Amino acid sequence: MNELGFFDGEFINLTEAKICLEDRGYQFGDGIYEATMVYNGHCFALERHLERCVRSLRALQIPITYTNDELAAIHEDLISKSGIKDGVIYFQITRATAPRQHFFPDKVIPHLSMTIRPTRLHTDWQENGIAAIWVEDIRWLRCDIKSLNLLGNVLAKQKAHEKNVGEAIQFRKDTNLVTEGSSTNFFIVKDGIIWTHPTDNLILKGITRSILLEECVPKLGLTVVEKAFTPEFALTAAEAFVTSTSLEVTPVTSISGKTIGTGIPGKITKDLQAAYKDLVAKTCHQ
Amino acid sequence: MNELGFFDGEFINLTEAKICLEDRGYQFGDGIYEATMVYNGHCFALERHLERCVRSLRALQIPITYTNDELAAIHEDLISKSGIKDGVIYFQITRATAPRQHFFPDKVIPHLSMTIRPTRLHTDWQENGIAAIWVEDIRWLRCDIKSLNLLGNVLAKQKAHEKNVGEAIQFRKDTNLVTEGSSTNFFIVKDGIIWTHPTDNLILKGITRSILLEECVPKLGLTVVEKAFTPEFALTAAEAFVTSTSLEVTPVTSISGKTIGTGIPGKITKDLQAAYKDLVAKTCHQ
Repeated sequence: MNELGFFDGEFINLTEAKICLEDRGYQFGDGIYEATMVYNGHCFALERHLERCVRSLRALQIPITYTNDELAAIHEDLISKSGIKDGVIYFQITRATAPRQHFFPDKVIPHLSMTIRPTRLHTDWQENGIAAIWVEDIRWLRCDIKSLNLLGNVLAKQKAHEKNVGEAIQFRKDTNLVTEGSSTNFFIVKDGIIWTHPTDNLILKGITRSILLEECVPKLGLTVVEKAFTPEFALTAAEAFVTSTSLEVTPVTSISGKTIGTGIPGKITKDLQAAYKDLVAKTCHQ
Repeated sequence: MNELGFFDGEFINLTEAKICLEDRGYQFGDGIYEATMVYNGHCFALERHLERCVRSLRALQIPITYTNDELAAIHEDLISKSGIKDGVIYFQITRATAPRQHFFPDKVIPHLSMTIRPTRLHTDWQENGIAAIWVEDIRWLRCDIKSLNLLGNVLAKQKAHEKNVGEAIQFRKDTNLVTEGSSTNFFIVKDGIIWTHPTDNLILKGITRSILLEECVPKLGLTVVEKAFTPEFALTAAEAFVTSTSLEVTPVTSISGKTIGTGIPGKITKDLQAAYKDLVAKTCHQ
């Protein structure tokens, strides 16, 4: 039940130093990542994560040197070797180690690093909801790539952390449109309809978001509009929630001090949360 | 005359692995950097680089654990231990190594890594100028921080590299205003006046840019307007050039196939280049 690491073919202790100074992941954030939940010793939605990984690598022109089957096998090995039943497996792939220059090196051998850590779900957050704050979205214009350039997300989450709330919901100042949370997708429910930002270059196509829209929403007979909205519009919603791999479906009950709806988790949010948990249970707890 | 590294107090071979997987520099690009030229065994404008480093650290709320004097001493040591007379010293400071979560860890011990490598100036580029291309500026809105989130810069430079030109000049699509090169500041000369983007959140306050504006421009009795302009306006200029620590003052003779002025390096550009080289010589070659 201890955390465990993996680097370029070798299982390692997380305190072992394996990375060179001129790894482009270290000097440019030149790489991509994924994080998958482990429930009851099983990875949830790993295929979707691995598909997105391929998309991110292609977007950054990083050669694909591991098959999805190989990556899946290492996920399994991390679970069995660590003995962790409930946790998160994180992995990242960086372009190469090479003398520093901005453009891609001629010889590219990507590095794969992985970690597994035990984790506990924020069941209190899922049950009672979280407070959030608005922050300006200052990130780059390729937020659809799950890259290691995460300072914008880090600074937004830190603001939430300093305010003692669970998430920072970002909006673009130039358009006054809400994009997503610092590590979550954001949704509102108004007049029974679920609203969320469309999957363009400004948000990450979250795996939990996709599962919700493709599997849970149809099952519940709900309606989704993938259309951007303003912070002011969001405050008129009856319900709000965020989704992510680690937070699943987590209600948002206030933003920057303004109560959403009645200030308690809404019915549609709770139904979606239950439908998602049901899927997880069916997949990982049989 | 070999490259040399430094990590957290220890001089190392650049192929030695010193970084842990959960260094936030590796997982979030959570850190800052500087690169200083070494001419004739002397660092040029190191004080300015170290001042900017402090500014970047403050902007990211990374604790300052090295004094500028200590950093300067390590620069000197790298020069003497490596025997490199003409080269580049690169250093970066990352926030900490900690189990992955977006917000800052409670216990923060920053990591300092440094490299020295021999380098040769692009004298051909400086003499004959370079061709460049326009690319959309897709970076985040804190380009004034010299952070390790460099994917936007990397992708822009790669486009230039694939087109066999020396630099990519970026413009913001929403405003149609030119910002800077992928690793340089950008200038034009029109009607005898030098134009360049003001130092706000959209560009890096380059050290070469500052030295040029504060020392060379007054010496030559020239006029500078720090005001953003469109790509179309830039194409009507008589001269264009880029500046950076490693490129110094390098003329730009065409952008995306459109000739600037007469297509050869302009007089004001060459005068500034000479004035800058003069400063370097006076500081480092006495």
